[in-house]
Amino acid sequence: MKKKGLLIVVSAPSGGGKGTVLKELFRRNENLKMSVSATTRAPRPGEEHGVHYYFISKDAFRQNIEDGAMLEYAEYCGNFYGTPKAPVQAWLDEGYDVVLEIEVQGGKQIKTVAPDCVSIFLVPPSLEVLEKRLRGRGTETEAVIQERLAAAREEIPHVLDYDYTVVNDTVEQAVIDIQAILEAEKLRVSRDQDIVERILNHA
Amino acid sequence: MKKKGLLIVVSAPSGGGKGTVLKELFRRNENLKMSVSATTRAPRPGEEHGVHYYFISKDAFRQNIEDGAMLEYAEYCGNFYGTPKAPVQAWLDEGYDVVLEIEVQGGKQIKTVAPDCVSIFLVPPSLEVLEKRLRGRGTETEAVIQERLAAAREEIPHVLDYDYTVVNDTVEQAVIDIQAILEAEKLRVSRDQDIVERILNHA
Repeated sequence: MKKKGLLIVVSAPSGGGKGTVLKELFRRNENLKMSVSATTRAPRPGEEHGVHYYFISKDAFRQNIEDGAMLEYAEYCGNFYGTPKAPVQAWLDEGYDVVLEIEVQGGKQIKTVAPDCVSIFLVPPSLEVLEKRLRGRGTETEAVIQERLAAAREEIPHVLDYDYTVVNDTVEQAVIDIQAILEAEKLRVSRDQDIVERILNHA
Repeated sequence: MKKKGLLIVVSAPSGGGKGTVLKELFRRNENLKMSVSATTRAPRPGEEHGVHYYFISKDAFRQNIEDGAMLEYAEYCGNFYGTPKAPVQAWLDEGYDVVLEIEVQGGKQIKTVAPDCVSIFLVPPSLEVLEKRLRGRGTETEAVIQERLAAAREEIPHVLDYDYTVVNDTVEQAVIDIQAILEAEKLRVSRDQDIVERILNHA
């Protein structure tokens, strides 16, 4: 039987460079799958339905919640974001490690329904660095930048609900850190309860 | 202030290749210190007092226990083995990671007095492989080999008391696995309670 994959929760303040880090992590690891979230927010330029998000209506999202088809969901800046349960479960059963890129509200929900998930909070070295990165994008208005900084200030204390912190100083080091976490978690005795029998009765 | 080091417990059945793995681990990591145990057993050829063990009398060992100067101790094959507390504490305070190479009885004691220690059980791929390795040494009598195999059979189920299992199939992979565990443990939020303040108030 193939060993069940890891459920990996990754959260970060907006502008924390999460996208770049995850892209590089996926480039280096073939056993990883990225969960595609559902959202009620409008697509940004370049975002594709089924690739970046499932873009669905608020009514459809509420129906999914009622049906118990969401692993977690959260409201953020007036929109719903959530994780459809079925594809995640299927990948885990096939032995893939599945990354959920979610907000801190959702991260907390996942720990409740899946306590054996691995939760990682990707933090900027400081708020100053975060602000510089937000401005560096050149795509956000000043009002949005201020809103995101205020959100980050509220989100960062939630790091204490997570298992691990990775400081996103350089992409290279952040990816190395996440890989070490995943390798170590696969060696946890609590994830391998058959180990005694396997060693003692190995043919 | 320098961050406190990790207290690392490594246990393995005798003949599991623990010595070779730890030697290579130390060669690659300058921040590691090996705790020198005290024991009442006789030195083996080549073993030096203060390097491999502190070889002390049973009376002296019992006095240390009474004085509360041992971090843990165990009786094994008629002899005492234990870890003097003071040097370990001093290294941890200096920021070194300290490895305790101890038996399963001692490993359990450490988890009680130092729940934040990282405990690793190094297991052979199977009992058959362990037996081959014990015979391969060419230094043990058949009676000793049988005694060690019986001990291993009793020790291996204690893996369930440990945080991590590393299978010693090749030295290279075992060392890589241990390094990933140590890197990941340093990223644990529970070991870095100042993190929120550090990010939000970074100058």
